[in-house]
Amino acid sequence: MTDQITDVAEEQLDDSDLNSFDSTGIDIAEVHRAVMGSWPAERQRARDIAADPLFWRDDTLAMDEHRDRVLEQVKLLTERGTPKLSFPKRLGGGENPGGNIAAFEEIFLADPSLQIKSGVQFGLFGAAIMHLGTEEHQDRWLPAAMNVETLGAFAMTETGHGSDVASIATTATYDEATEEFVINTPFRAAWKDYLGNAAKDGTAAVLFAQLITKGMNHGVHAFYVEIRDEAGNYLPGIGGEDDGVKGGLNGIDNGRLHFSDVRIPRTNLLNRYGDVAADGTYSSPIESPGRRFFVMLGTLVQGRVSLDGSAVVAQQAALAIAVTYANQRRQFDNSGSGQETVLLDYGRHQRRLIPRLATAYAATFSHDEFLREFDTVFSGEGDTPERRADLETLAAALKPTTTWAGMDTLQIAREACGGAGYLAENRLTFLRHDLDVYTTFEGDNTVLLQLVGKRLLEDYASKFKEADARESARMLVSQAASRAFHDIGLARLGSIARDFGSSARSVGWLREPENQHALLSARIEEQISEIGMSLNRAQKAGKGDAAFNSLQHKLIETSHAYGELIQWEAFTRKLEDFDPESETHRILTWLRDLFGLSLIERDLSWYLMSGRLTTKRARLVSSYMTRLISRLRPHAQSLVDAFGYKDAHLRAKIASGAEKARQDEAAAYYSALRTSGNAPEDERTVYRAKRKQKREQERAAQQK
Amino acid sequence: MTDQITDVAEEQLDDSDLNSFDSTGIDIAEVHRAVMGSWPAERQRARDIAADPLFWRDDTLAMDEHRDRVLEQVKLLTERGTPKLSFPKRLGGGENPGGNIAAFEEIFLADPSLQIKSGVQFGLFGAAIMHLGTEEHQDRWLPAAMNVETLGAFAMTETGHGSDVASIATTATYDEATEEFVINTPFRAAWKDYLGNAAKDGTAAVLFAQLITKGMNHGVHAFYVEIRDEAGNYLPGIGGEDDGVKGGLNGIDNGRLHFSDVRIPRTNLLNRYGDVAADGTYSSPIESPGRRFFVMLGTLVQGRVSLDGSAVVAQQAALAIAVTYANQRRQFDNSGSGQETVLLDYGRHQRRLIPRLATAYAATFSHDEFLREFDTVFSGEGDTPERRADLETLAAALKPTTTWAGMDTLQIAREACGGAGYLAENRLTFLRHDLDVYTTFEGDNTVLLQLVGKRLLEDYASKFKEADARESARMLVSQAASRAFHDIGLARLGSIARDFGSSARSVGWLREPENQHALLSARIEEQISEIGMSLNRAQKAGKGDAAFNSLQHKLIETSHAYGELIQWEAFTRKLEDFDPESETHRILTWLRDLFGLSLIERDLSWYLMSGRLTTKRARLVSSYMTRLISRLRPHAQSLVDAFGYKDAHLRAKIASGAEKARQDEAAAYYSALRTSGNAPEDERTVYRAKRKQKREQERAAQQK
Repeated sequence: MTDQITDVAEEQLDDSDLNSFDSTGIDIAEVHRAVMGSWPAERQRARDIAADPLFWRDDTLAMDEHRDRVLEQVKLLTERGTPKLSFPKRLGGGENPGGNIAAFEEIFLADPSLQIKSGVQFGLFGAAIMHLGTEEHQDRWLPAAMNVETLGAFAMTETGHGSDVASIATTATYDEATEEFVINTPFRAAWKDYLGNAAKDGTAAVLFAQLITKGMNHGVHAFYVEIRDEAGNYLPGIGGEDDGVKGGLNGIDNGRLHFSDVRIPRTNLLNRYGDVAADGTYSSPIESPGRRFFVMLGTLVQGRVSLDGSAVVAQQAALAIAVTYANQRRQFDNSGSGQETVLLDYGRHQRRLIPRLATAYAATFSHDEFLREFDTVFSGEGDTPERRADLETLAAALKPTTTWAGMDTLQIAREACGGAGYLAENRLTFLRHDLDVYTTFEGDNTVLLQLVGKRLLEDYASKFKEADARESARMLVSQAASRAFHDIGLARLGSIARDFGSSARSVGWLREPENQHALLSARIEEQISEIGMSLNRAQKAGKGDAAFNSLQHKLIETSHAYGELIQWEAFTRKLEDFDPESETHRILTWLRDLFGLSLIERDLSWYLMSGRLTTKRARLVSSYMTRLISRLRPHAQSLVDAFGYKDAHLRAKIASGAEKARQDEAAAYYSALRTSGNAPEDERTVYRAKRKQKREQERAAQQK
Repeated sequence: MTDQITDVAEEQLDDSDLNSFDSTGIDIAEVHRAVMGSWPAERQRARDIAADPLFWRDDTLAMDEHRDRVLEQVKLLTERGTPKLSFPKRLGGGENPGGNIAAFEEIFLADPSLQIKSGVQFGLFGAAIMHLGTEEHQDRWLPAAMNVETLGAFAMTETGHGSDVASIATTATYDEATEEFVINTPFRAAWKDYLGNAAKDGTAAVLFAQLITKGMNHGVHAFYVEIRDEAGNYLPGIGGEDDGVKGGLNGIDNGRLHFSDVRIPRTNLLNRYGDVAADGTYSSPIESPGRRFFVMLGTLVQGRVSLDGSAVVAQQAALAIAVTYANQRRQFDNSGSGQETVLLDYGRHQRRLIPRLATAYAATFSHDEFLREFDTVFSGEGDTPERRADLETLAAALKPTTTWAGMDTLQIAREACGGAGYLAENRLTFLRHDLDVYTTFEGDNTVLLQLVGKRLLEDYASKFKEADARESARMLVSQAASRAFHDIGLARLGSIARDFGSSARSVGWLREPENQHALLSARIEEQISEIGMSLNRAQKAGKGDAAFNSLQHKLIETSHAYGELIQWEAFTRKLEDFDPESETHRILTWLRDLFGLSLIERDLSWYLMSGRLTTKRARLVSSYMTRLISRLRPHAQSLVDAFGYKDAHLRAKIASGAEKARQDEAAAYYSALRTSGNAPEDERTVYRAKRKQKREQERAAQQK
């Protein structure tokens, strides 16, 4: 038994590529270009803004002052022009949806409050006018929104309904007599809640409400509503509350709004997808009220796209700080040489940081593909209903995957920096406080992943009812994936990975991208197939709801794995951009392998139970990861340097070189002390020598 | 293949005890008594303080005002008397070390800043005087410390050395001519750092420095040093910096101190474990300088004990908030009944919260055993060197285990409460910000777990060199455990779990505590054995250091599992306090089983690879967990109610009944609307009916 369990690293690892390691290292500039992605100019423009002290977070401010500062920053940001990138050219915009999001993401490192406050203003309030309104609406309201003359709230969520937007309780009832809508929030749970710009700055809102006319509820529609006068007083019938201090993002004035018989003109309905004539007749270009609802919400997918990219920025910054510190900070003289060990030379420290570096790269490259797809759809270049639906699936898979990874990486980075990591001056804690809510706003991660799972299951149920269940599951996942990724190419799901236990070149087998891919996709296929079959059986027995509920956790885990597979594929495709003979290619391939294997390691029990991996090969997963990590360790600094963040972005004292200066100063002090001859003796040395002498005397006495 | 992977829950679960479920539920009062542990009066006294608004955290305060408030609260707390519980009776203390810690832990829910500021004052500054000084020192300095006339810093950590205390660079050099010590921090990395009370309030410090006399460095000793005059100005030769804003605990004035030729009287050396005579001669009751160092540091173990208990409080509070909200909050009308589903009825929500409830109970019961052991040693009742060493191992295993679990539980609770969870008014985020640093202060979790691992390995190496390696590993772990738990009884490691694949009563097999225990302990035994053997091989090859480093991650994971096993055992022992025929016993047993199985599930791949579990039985682990979770779901509210926290402790609006009131109000509104006949029709209903009609017409047309 023991022999079986013994770490097999020494004996069985295939070392064939060990000696080929080339110390010339990676081409940092080339990797940096890859990191900057498809809108490098816009991204760089925003990085320059984020490096300007005018836009920095001031950690010493209490909520009120922080809000004031961020409001001024939003105005300043508007002057710099990046927020206008997405808007119509005829209104001074750039009609550059991809570049707009790329720029937006980088504002995270100025202050996430500034990022999200501008996101509320331009990406929600402004974007809703643009996407849900007509040209007339755009002309009427967008200029003031784009110039921050009108600050606006995005009044969708209510205290009582967040994830289930279709069930919001606010009503907009049409009054034919006056040709007005009458807005009401009929009870406390119907109050609009958590709205940026609502507590203080907003004078208008895009408000979502059940549109009722002629006794018929046509579902959720958006309305332009003025909420405050120029003096900042609520307009008649409107009131509100401040959400107060939050776990982060305290530069934003989130608040609640309630409405009692507030009348707005009929023409304030943002009526692109549904209109009410003067006589109260409702009409819509989309007949199905269900589809209409999803089309309207779908226009707002850019929020999720941008959060995916922001969480990538968070991962990059966290690792840039923690890896830089870990390469300078020393603790414990393990070799007795008088030289303490650099933190990143500890096996545990490597295990905490280097696999997360692989995750950050995977997230970086997949986000760029995602952003290109978003741009293709929203620039109109490739705008089809199917592609919009696929884009939403992609968003629902990736936003949870990266925001959770961002939280995890920030926390590990903070702990890896010890007490220094807890100081605001080293950034990690406050970035994490701010990122926290990214996991539940713009779609709760759990709810989004359930959407992904349902999409896969729906295809399974509707298209392959008659076919052999397992085969069909495989087909469905390929099919869904290929639909979601026509232009990106994630269509290789469905290959069969089976480890027949050949012992030759075992590590080589794990290293083959085809095998990594097959293992990762197999897990998704089979789990979806299992869930689908269980649901079919349960539905036949009339227990579908209960069965779905008991499988919900498994479905969500599978959808999460699907998001990670998308990232793995994007990373693998990105490798093709590098010269296959280059050191850079070799190192990034290790990093991709490490990402793939870390996913397999986490779910190793599944691979064992499903027979996809033999025990023998499964053991190699962890030991090969250890090997990859130690190969990557010398390149960790280059890999974080390639993110391209400067001190003005990271603004972490421990990553500024201060730690190295302290280490050098201390070493110089001790060196001078030794040279001076004034260094005290160490009692421990004397004690050890005395003990040794005593032992020798005892031994000598015994021999007498 | 597919059949093998299919969820086997339906077919193979042993349902024998399903029908015996008794709806009368658990005896909440009895469970509450168990939760309150061995010092219920002291714990309740501190709970009363935590429920007093005078002691509450004010989330709106910026750092400076927060510090001022907490300083006043520390003084007030002193008036209430709980901090004096640990001190000598002759000075007005209670000589009640266990009760003191129990009370201290509950202050977490007032404001963690207040807790830790008082911990610095009484548990570090005061305790160091008490434990490292003589009676004379106590008489001279303790009364002012106990009454907060002198606020003191605990000046151990330096910017350059945190985990490696033995290597701090501050020196205290004895000057025979003046009979003084001369204190120096010779370079920037030697500055004392992260010290509570140092930035503003402290007028004195217990300072740790290398004691040098007659050209010999006798290692780290503690000195009483005055740092500021009554006006708050630094004394000559002393300076400092404010650590500024932190990721949490901003009510504490952490800062840095530096010393240049600061002279203090010889008698300011806290000389219980090492003294310098007027002529400069050093003496110590402990000959070995290494052991002397560990004995001195060991007197301060109470910090780790109290953090273990504080993290338990954090887990309890987080779950009380999240479970209460999840039982009131509704989202999505899944059944089409017009009644939305309560969050805790979702399978995923249950999976997120209920296993963590099991973890919180395990942590609660094991903390009480730990605290009793601490009290036995520190009350003098059972104070032996072995027991002190064992207590430190216990602290090193449990403090990391619970602080990480506390962080995890707070974050999951926050996400489970969605946007509401992010508001300060619902407590979760700020408790988490504050708890964050508990994972790295008072011993970095990673470093502590490595100590645990080294302890196990040392015994392995020294005692069983000659014996068969695997057998010896088993013996060693039992032996180490029994040494660490003589009075507690964790001595059952070493039993052999082997799953021979019998399919009969498979779930019954998993339910047997003997089998859970054997599985959990087997993992520790075998991993320690593997690591030990690998190290032996490597040492023979002269590669011991490299091998240790590559195994460091595995060793730390194993030590973490050891901490969890201690918790599992304590939970199991606690079950004996309940009537075995009672519903309470049955439910708590499910909870214990869930805790055990969740640990096994996480490491399932190890159990499969080691042959400890067959694939068949391994599959049952997750499905039986699902079953246990759904059995426990109806009791979740009772289980959090049994923690006994009131609204004044939790102070989370969402857990105050407000959500239920909102739900009731909304339901009443819709009910009245339906009754009134004024409810609008729903277009979706009309649309569906129209579609159905159309389909029927088409079918009819085809049949014609």
